[in-house]
Amino acid sequence: MLLLDLIEGKPIKRTPIWLMRQAGRYLPEYRAIKERHTFLEMCHDPELVFEITMQPLRRFDLDAAIIFSDILILAEAIGVPVDFLPEPHIQQPLRSASDVAKLATHNVQHRIGFLLEAIRRVRQGLPEEKALLGFAGAPFTVAAYMVEGKGSKDFVEVKRLMYQNKTVFRDLLAKVGEALVPFLQAQIEAGCNLVQIFDSWASVLSFDDYCEFALEAVRPVIMALKAQKAPVIYYINGAAPYLGVLKETGADVISIDHRTNPRHAIEALQGLVLQGNMDPAVLLADEAVIREQARKTLRAFKGAKGHIFNLGHGVLKETSVEAIECLVDEVHRA
Amino acid sequence: MLLLDLIEGKPIKRTPIWLMRQAGRYLPEYRAIKERHTFLEMCHDPELVFEITMQPLRRFDLDAAIIFSDILILAEAIGVPVDFLPEPHIQQPLRSASDVAKLATHNVQHRIGFLLEAIRRVRQGLPEEKALLGFAGAPFTVAAYMVEGKGSKDFVEVKRLMYQNKTVFRDLLAKVGEALVPFLQAQIEAGCNLVQIFDSWASVLSFDDYCEFALEAVRPVIMALKAQKAPVIYYINGAAPYLGVLKETGADVISIDHRTNPRHAIEALQGLVLQGNMDPAVLLADEAVIREQARKTLRAFKGAKGHIFNLGHGVLKETSVEAIECLVDEVHRA
Repeated sequence: MLLLDLIEGKPIKRTPIWLMRQAGRYLPEYRAIKERHTFLEMCHDPELVFEITMQPLRRFDLDAAIIFSDILILAEAIGVPVDFLPEPHIQQPLRSASDVAKLATHNVQHRIGFLLEAIRRVRQGLPEEKALLGFAGAPFTVAAYMVEGKGSKDFVEVKRLMYQNKTVFRDLLAKVGEALVPFLQAQIEAGCNLVQIFDSWASVLSFDDYCEFALEAVRPVIMALKAQKAPVIYYINGAAPYLGVLKETGADVISIDHRTNPRHAIEALQGLVLQGNMDPAVLLADEAVIREQARKTLRAFKGAKGHIFNLGHGVLKETSVEAIECLVDEVHRA
Repeated sequence: MLLLDLIEGKPIKRTPIWLMRQAGRYLPEYRAIKERHTFLEMCHDPELVFEITMQPLRRFDLDAAIIFSDILILAEAIGVPVDFLPEPHIQQPLRSASDVAKLATHNVQHRIGFLLEAIRRVRQGLPEEKALLGFAGAPFTVAAYMVEGKGSKDFVEVKRLMYQNKTVFRDLLAKVGEALVPFLQAQIEAGCNLVQIFDSWASVLSFDDYCEFALEAVRPVIMALKAQKAPVIYYINGAAPYLGVLKETGADVISIDHRTNPRHAIEALQGLVLQGNMDPAVLLADEAVIREQARKTLRAFKGAKGHIFNLGHGVLKETSVEAIECLVDEVHRA
């Protein structure tokens, strides 16, 4: 498995590639499913999850599939229902110690049968050399969503809680972390070869707050997963301010966004495999630009211990299928 | 003038403080004006601009006023009308070479009489020891707004243009830059003691793209302003990836957001005065937290050549007047 070989430091024939949100709205066959089902139906039905997860693999020679799901499936599994309107919306956001106390973090693996069933099917349907990624949101990101109740620009509610009721917020992070371990372990046991933890929102924090809250909360999760012998990728959108401490997450791979300079990441994260980081908007340009920027990204990571080609963020819905074909082809050629 | 003395390296008795968006929705007297006027009416009426600019200075012992306006007033002045609904909205966003060619960048100073008149009044009404700041958006940020047409998460349109039609995008940046110089010079001539250039959106760019487009476009503007002998503050929201090249902007002061680690900024920007960077959300907490975090911010900038206390971003509308009082008091005590 190219992806695992790279992470384990074995010799590899070329740079592996997969794309965040490779199953998504840019694909006509995804949109066809989306027209007939709500987002939660899509997440809850193992057959649909299987189908959507496999869609990009049928079109493109990618080195990994990532199970189709949402980081808020964990919120739902610990007792915080989420609507998708289509943006995620939590009717009763958490704001107090008693809200946090009510979270049902035990045996979370028993409440995600649909996801585990889908993972088993995908692993069976995937060619042996392709990796299957499980995933989850990092404690800070999931907690922030549960406190904020929806997407946010300023994260007023989560920061109000964090600055004013540090203990309650820490309890919340710890509870999410406790649930995350069996949540990801179950995905690995069901057939995922590695997992990616998305800290999509951690970069709203100052450096000190990142260290005190986001990093402190994700580290024990990653440490607990190490026992599973499945590698962990940690993705943080807006990684630049925190590069100097990301090694402390314990992750095997750090996945960086396109704003983060690969050179800075290589310097700060010696000895770690890096993933990233072409701007997803490059895929809106023509073939020549895509090929040039893909080569530039490959060159930029030359000094890293290893490089998994990815975008700095998810595939944009405006992307064409031809753009992805061209990108995969260029990475294969290199 | 405390602020200018600091920038000029003269001895000062304490750290100066002003706050981005110190005139704004958190103030009841601002909301009272806003109820009776549209946002554009407020920007276009010298008396209202005077009034709104002075409001925070009447309440708090701040060291500077910043003229009330909007970065898109420049767009309007070069022939791109903007509606505020209340979010900025441009009916005919720029997308082509001919759109760019139509921009009326000459003599922009003749089309901002309302703003210059307001500046004259404020400078007259302001105590001598308080600085008056003029401002503008940086070329990339203004250009991005004009191409995108509204706020954006992914900046699909501006990046599509940037990657696909580099020449058109460069022309656009150059044209905005050409207009910016007289726009800011006129503000200085009317009475502003210094100016701040906001590159609020530049941090959507990769390091290389930042250097190639945003930095290249703002540098000549700042260089041209140097002749005016009014100091220039360059603010970039999400500064961390670019710290190593921000000195090349030529700005006298670099203003950093709250995600950027002051220690990294001090290291990268030796010899420059820094401004920032307390998380605006701290002001939602109680007095003890505000005072503690204010002292922490002051300590964090101790190694800089000079420090202007500010937030990492604008005052949040949820902020209380008492929170600002408490912050200003703590900075004065230190």
